[in-house]
Amino acid sequence: MRIARFSIDGNVAFGAVEGEKQDELVLDIIKGIPFADFELSGTKVPLSKVRLLPPVLPNKVVAFGRNYADHAKEMGNEVPEAPFAFFKPSTSVIGPGDEIRYPSFSQEVHHEAELAVVIGRMCREVPRERVKDVIFGYTCANDITARDVQKREKQWARAKGFDTSCPLGPWVETGLDVTAANDLTVQLTVNGAQRQLGRTSEMIHSIEDLIVNITEAMTLLPGDVVLTGTPAGVGPLHDGDEVAVTIEGIGTLTNKVVKRG
Amino acid sequence: MRIARFSIDGNVAFGAVEGEKQDELVLDIIKGIPFADFELSGTKVPLSKVRLLPPVLPNKVVAFGRNYADHAKEMGNEVPEAPFAFFKPSTSVIGPGDEIRYPSFSQEVHHEAELAVVIGRMCREVPRERVKDVIFGYTCANDITARDVQKREKQWARAKGFDTSCPLGPWVETGLDVTAANDLTVQLTVNGAQRQLGRTSEMIHSIEDLIVNITEAMTLLPGDVVLTGTPAGVGPLHDGDEVAVTIEGIGTLTNKVVKRG
Repeated sequence: MRIARFSIDGNVAFGAVEGEKQDELVLDIIKGIPFADFELSGTKVPLSKVRLLPPVLPNKVVAFGRNYADHAKEMGNEVPEAPFAFFKPSTSVIGPGDEIRYPSFSQEVHHEAELAVVIGRMCREVPRERVKDVIFGYTCANDITARDVQKREKQWARAKGFDTSCPLGPWVETGLDVTAANDLTVQLTVNGAQRQLGRTSEMIHSIEDLIVNITEAMTLLPGDVVLTGTPAGVGPLHDGDEVAVTIEGIGTLTNKVVKRG
Repeated sequence: MRIARFSIDGNVAFGAVEGEKQDELVLDIIKGIPFADFELSGTKVPLSKVRLLPPVLPNKVVAFGRNYADHAKEMGNEVPEAPFAFFKPSTSVIGPGDEIRYPSFSQEVHHEAELAVVIGRMCREVPRERVKDVIFGYTCANDITARDVQKREKQWARAKGFDTSCPLGPWVETGLDVTAANDLTVQLTVNGAQRQLGRTSEMIHSIEDLIVNITEAMTLLPGDVVLTGTPAGVGPLHDGDEVAVTIEGIGTLTNKVVKRG
């Protein structure tokens, strides 16, 4: 099931996305909370009539660096033996169609297409065989990075945590199991031209590895998001660019870039 | 005014702390929300009868590295020209009296006493002269760090973001202006023996610098916390240690260390 979060007439709701053709998609409004028990109301609205919001409001986004060998290589970096994590704050999250805004202190903002894992239940020290039980679903993410700032600041809070640096969406796909999610095509285009293409099967550390690694250290809450790293092909975004992340079996997350000044 | 958050009979409330002697402190329960308009109810409870909680529940904690030259030096690091920031997640926050727990993957957990700035209003791109307007008050923090993990993982999400790694408290002092806060004694003891002693006047980047720097990049929300760096003298904590951060004009934050296994 594809679960979207949206606003309509000033109200925020969740809905199950029905249909296949982009211009014929319909939302069946959800009664209750997607993370707990819920049912479909049967009340349907065309997706074209609503504004999609970020599909979750994470308390935190935990992201992993250098999880594709080709990307580590293109950045001139070693492939790390163990995963390493950083945070993107909740204030960096935007939804499909929202604008990615250049921060004032960067001249080089890059795209990074990533599979995002959405956590479904509060969890800590999750054993490998239980990882599947704590996952609510999957969505597309763009780990927007001020590359120039990342190079000059030792920790990446500003380079990867600025407002609008975490587009998520368009919805959460709950129908993939973790084995399937470890083998999906991840593609990114800028103005329709392909820039990144990879498969999650190329990840150095699998989804299970990453969830085990981070929950050794900290509690994840329902709605928290884990970003799994980006394949090769990252590059700059410019004023007016339209950047789209497409993940097989999930959908396409599209955002426009706005550079101030 | 010193504003504490506490639980009593299963309810959570805020209160203004009255009195000077530790065993005679009284809480005047607050009606309303401290970040907005509020008044004192006149209903008073002895502080000894309640459990103090973290004085705020931050959406995010933004912390700055190497902001005291002596500490950068003791770690063998250069003093950075510009501030650099990292995050501690909300799930790392604990209150006064709560236990600091060693994570399973570290054998070397260190204390780092820090002045914490509590943000009072949603803000972004704050000009230097308006910094004072976005600050709600100040509290004590201990930026607990798994030093061995910090050395081997390039980004510090696990090393500085594990559960219980961000003790805050005992309350928020709202009566200090930012000039006063830039010149306070910061002290840390372990089992009563002094380990860290510094003054916030030794900070390389002032409170104003730090708030300007981080809000260039991201929105801060009411209750968000900015940690301002630690003076020299950091060192390991062991099972059973009692660690106390005392900041002039604010109070003392005490926590016990528990090592598993």
